[in-house]
Amino acid sequence: MELLNQHVTIRKFKNQTVPQKLIESVLYSGTRASTTGNMQVYSVIVTQEEKRRQELAPLHFNQPVAVNAPVLLTFAADFNRFSKWCQFNSAEPGYNNFISFITATIDALLVAQNVCVAAENNGLGICYLGTTTYNAGEIITLLDLPKLTFPVTTVALGYPDENPGLTDRIPLEGVIHYEKYVDYNETRIRELYAYKESLDSMKQFVTENDKETLAQVFTDVRYKKKDNEFFSEKMLKTLKDQGFME
Amino acid sequence: MELLNQHVTIRKFKNQTVPQKLIESVLYSGTRASTTGNMQVYSVIVTQEEKRRQELAPLHFNQPVAVNAPVLLTFAADFNRFSKWCQFNSAEPGYNNFISFITATIDALLVAQNVCVAAENNGLGICYLGTTTYNAGEIITLLDLPKLTFPVTTVALGYPDENPGLTDRIPLEGVIHYEKYVDYNETRIRELYAYKESLDSMKQFVTENDKETLAQVFTDVRYKKKDNEFFSEKMLKTLKDQGFME
Repeated sequence: MELLNQHVTIRKFKNQTVPQKLIESVLYSGTRASTTGNMQVYSVIVTQEEKRRQELAPLHFNQPVAVNAPVLLTFAADFNRFSKWCQFNSAEPGYNNFISFITATIDALLVAQNVCVAAENNGLGICYLGTTTYNAGEIITLLDLPKLTFPVTTVALGYPDENPGLTDRIPLEGVIHYEKYVDYNETRIRELYAYKESLDSMKQFVTENDKETLAQVFTDVRYKKKDNEFFSEKMLKTLKDQGFME
Repeated sequence: MELLNQHVTIRKFKNQTVPQKLIESVLYSGTRASTTGNMQVYSVIVTQEEKRRQELAPLHFNQPVAVNAPVLLTFAADFNRFSKWCQFNSAEPGYNNFISFITATIDALLVAQNVCVAAENNGLGICYLGTTTYNAGEIITLLDLPKLTFPVTTVALGYPDENPGLTDRIPLEGVIHYEKYVDYNETRIRELYAYKESLDSMKQFVTENDKETLAQVFTDVRYKKKDNEFFSEKMLKTLKDQGFME
């Protein structure tokens, strides 16, 4: 399927407004994704106002794409709406717990990916912001998200102003297991990552960061143990604050 | 986008093998989805053997679709492969924590949804099994999933042997918020759920379950507080067992 197979992340957008009807159309395609028990336990918060985008961008560490995209879509796990429906209908909701957060997270992410596919099919470009869960608490405050909601990812959206090539992937058989998971030994790992490590862009990445191996760029610079532990604790606290750990 | 907008869940499949090349092709489209830092922290376990499917189905509570689908795809968050790559390259991985589980879960779900879109584009039908996280520990044992992996969803795949209509959704504006989340009052909830509650199929659902309201079917029969609490505790324990809570 050409559209999916040619997906590239866009980080530079034209200074061009995305029509309201188009935003609604791609969001509608999002809502046609599968949803657990047809409960639709998600919400999407659309950020377009200049002022609001400037407030949201620092919570995504001011990544240029977060600063420059005309539209930011925050996808939230949402058991608030469904629980309110229960309460107004003589039913006692029991969704203030971890598994319900996970269920709603799955729902929200299927919507997000459908929105991205629909957006690209309409000539838009997208970039996922993996920073959403790092600063979930601050995003919750900024967007007025109530208890039993939790922002799980953000998509920057706009008309592409760049045309990057496809990024590398490890060979397909490296991520698939037939019948049973076959664990990876050193030989297999070296085979699977050889192409990635051989790329000039990756070699440059190692040099620029003054590291010996590409893996060290990830462990020592990009996704550090200390940061992961900090954000894990922070996220678990926010999950508790949002009422999902009762 | 017609393909996304016409999505229906298929629970009855033809007794027809899905060609290996087609499975690989839709999985390839999955791997073209966005992935955090291009780390590809996911794996897909393909279950096709009759014996293995019969072992897996009870872990999905023997839903007919789990029993009858010719292919089950288990999508797992996977920081095992990436961590091994780090270890074999003089880098100290720090991904045995909650935020890394969430990051890998997001990765796995974007792949899953792309796979579903690609499958439908090739005439296949799909059904998500929301039961995966309920019995994650048992699925881990059956599929030999190592530490730092976790099954987050399963997709049943095959050639459709039914042609169901589109399911209902609440009005689009009910799941979208512009700039700030606007919480729902009773009037708004009643407006949003009126159509769903008016459907004959839903009224029948209420009668069949001997309930007064549709919401009670969810809280008292389908997604009960007690069950949610049980599966929350179970999942958190399995997350710990898999090394994601250190």
